[in-house]
Amino acid sequence: MNKPITIAVDAMGGDNSPDKVIEGISIHSIASKDVSYKIFGNENLITPFIKKYSISSNRFDIIHTDKVVEGEDTALSAAKKGKHTSLWLAVESVKNNEAHAIVSAGNTGALFLISKLNLKMIENIDKPALSALWPSKKDLNVVLDLGANIECNSKNLVDFSIMGSALLKALFDNKKAYVALLNIGSEELKGNAMIKDTYQILTEKKYNLFDFKGYIEGNHIMDGDVNVIVADGFTGNIALKTAEGTSNFIIAELKKALSSSMIGKFSSLLNYNNLKIFKNKLDPRLYNGAILLGLDKPVIKSHGSTDSIGFANSLKVCEKTIRGNLIEQIKDNIN
Amino acid sequence: MNKPITIAVDAMGGDNSPDKVIEGISIHSIASKDVSYKIFGNENLITPFIKKYSISSNRFDIIHTDKVVEGEDTALSAAKKGKHTSLWLAVESVKNNEAHAIVSAGNTGALFLISKLNLKMIENIDKPALSALWPSKKDLNVVLDLGANIECNSKNLVDFSIMGSALLKALFDNKKAYVALLNIGSEELKGNAMIKDTYQILTEKKYNLFDFKGYIEGNHIMDGDVNVIVADGFTGNIALKTAEGTSNFIIAELKKALSSSMIGKFSSLLNYNNLKIFKNKLDPRLYNGAILLGLDKPVIKSHGSTDSIGFANSLKVCEKTIRGNLIEQIKDNIN
Repeated sequence: MNKPITIAVDAMGGDNSPDKVIEGISIHSIASKDVSYKIFGNENLITPFIKKYSISSNRFDIIHTDKVVEGEDTALSAAKKGKHTSLWLAVESVKNNEAHAIVSAGNTGALFLISKLNLKMIENIDKPALSALWPSKKDLNVVLDLGANIECNSKNLVDFSIMGSALLKALFDNKKAYVALLNIGSEELKGNAMIKDTYQILTEKKYNLFDFKGYIEGNHIMDGDVNVIVADGFTGNIALKTAEGTSNFIIAELKKALSSSMIGKFSSLLNYNNLKIFKNKLDPRLYNGAILLGLDKPVIKSHGSTDSIGFANSLKVCEKTIRGNLIEQIKDNIN
Repeated sequence: MNKPITIAVDAMGGDNSPDKVIEGISIHSIASKDVSYKIFGNENLITPFIKKYSISSNRFDIIHTDKVVEGEDTALSAAKKGKHTSLWLAVESVKNNEAHAIVSAGNTGALFLISKLNLKMIENIDKPALSALWPSKKDLNVVLDLGANIECNSKNLVDFSIMGSALLKALFDNKKAYVALLNIGSEELKGNAMIKDTYQILTEKKYNLFDFKGYIEGNHIMDGDVNVIVADGFTGNIALKTAEGTSNFIIAELKKALSSSMIGKFSSLLNYNNLKIFKNKLDPRLYNGAILLGLDKPVIKSHGSTDSIGFANSLKVCEKTIRGNLIEQIKDNIN
C-alpha cells in the first residue's frame, strides 16, 4: 500500500477540456489506487464526463467555479482575473496543503505566474526552471531550463543541475544522474564566460545527487550517455523547439515518401506494425508534462493539445514527483 | 558562355583525400566548362587520381607541397606550421587574385583562422559569420552564424542579415530574401536585449536585399516561410547541432523499426524507391559546404566526411558565390 496522496487538477485548460482531463483522471485512477483528485472547474461541464468515464465518487471532489483562464490570456491578464479561476483555486489548494501537486493543460505562462505568486521558492534557489523529458537512444533525459529564464548566471545553472537530478531520481526509481552542460563544443575552451564558470564550479565541488560529465553538444543530447542536460532558458528553448521542428519535418517527409505511390501505400500497410513501434518511441504523449522546478510544491504543465492518454501521463508525473520526494531531495541538496 | 573562373582547392583535407577531392573536381568540371582549378597538395598523391578520373590537363594546375594541416591540429598549431601547407598556399592564391574562391574539406578552425590572417574583412563588417544551407518544406534556407562568434551585438546581427541575404541571392538566382531572427517567442516582447535591439533596427530601416519578417522559433525554421535565419554563433550552433542529433536519432529509430522483422525487411524492399526519394531530400551531401562570410573573398568549407559528390557540390557553391557576385552584393549593401 502506498500512502494516499491528492492531486489538484485544473479541469478547464487546453483543447477539448474538461473531456480529456476527466478521461485522463479515469485512466490514471485505475492504475493508481491511492490517489485522489481535487477537480477545479465548471461542475455542469465536468459532471457528465465523470459519469461517462465512471469515476467512483470516493476518488474525487469537484470544486466549482465558472471563471477560467483562457488560452489567449497573457500571464498577467490571467493573474488579474483574480482568485476565482479554476487555475488559481487549484494552485491555492496546493499552497494550503489540501493537495500535494498541481497539474494543468491550460495556459503555460498563467500557470507559472500564478504558481510563483502563490507558492514559495525553495530556500537558496534564485530562479525556478522549466524542465521536460526528452527521448534518448537508451531512455529518457531531463532537460532544463526550457524557457523560464532568458538570462542566467552560474549559480542558476548549478541549481538547475541539482533540481534536474532530483527530478530524474524522483521519476525513475532513484537512478544515477549524469549532468552535462549544453554548449557549442566539448572542449573546455569553448562557450561563454557564464558556462565556463559553471563548469569550474561543477568540476571542483562534489555532489551527492549526480556525477558531472562536462559539456555536451546539441547533436549528442539524444545519445543517452548523460541524462540531465542543463542550459539557460534561452538556449534550452532554442534546442527544444529546433528538435521539435526537425522531428516534424522528417516525419512529414517520411509520410510523403511512403504514400507517394501505390506500391508505397501497399507496403506501408505491411510495415504497419513496425512503424507503429517507431511511432510509439517518438510519441510525444509519453513525455507529456513539463515540470516547473524551484517552488516548494510540484507544478506540472500538460501539453494543451494532448489527449486523455497524455493527460494521464502528466498525472503519473505528478504522482512520481510526490512519491519520489522531489521537493525534499532538492531541499536536502541545494546547499 | 560564362566568364572563366578559377577555384583554389586544398586537396589534402578531410577523409579519403585527395581521392574524393579529385573525383569531385572531375564531376564538377564536366558540368561547369568554364571553371579551372588550382590544386594544392602532394603531387605524387594527386597525379594518380587525376589520371584515374581523366581530368583534362587544360583544366587544372597542381601546386606541389608536402606540408599539410592535419585534422588534429588546432587552428593555432595549423597557422604556426607556416606558409607552406596546402591550405595556406590555397588561401594565399585567392589573396593574390590567382583564384576567385577557396574550398577545403580539412580542418574547419584552421581554414577560418588562416583565411582571417590572409584575407581582408569587407569594410564596415566587424565579425565574419559561418553560414550553411538547411532544408525547409519548400526549399533551402541560409542559416547564420553557426559558431564563428559566441557573443554578438545588434550591429553584427544586422550585418549577418545582409550577408545571409546576399548569399541566398548568389546561390539561388537572385530570389527574394526573407530574414527572420531566431528567438524563443514570436511576440515582440520575448528575447534578450540584444535581439530586441536588432529587431528595432531591422524594422525601422528598409533594406534593398531583403524583407524583414520578425522573429522565428526553432520549430518553424524548416517551414519555408522565411529563407534567411539569423542568430548569434552560440544560438545558431546549438540549433544546427540539435537538428543534426534529432535527425540522426529519428533515422536510426526508423531503420530499427523497418528491419526488426522479416515482414519489415520484405516490405522495406518494396518501399525502396520511396525511401530513396526521402533519403535524397535529407541527403547532407546536397547541402554540403559551409560558407565563411565577411571576408573579401568566398571561403567554402566542405564537410570532412563527405564523398566526391558532396565535394563537387561544394565546388558548385564556390562557383555560384563567384558568378552571383556575393562579395560585391555584400559591399554594395553593407552601409
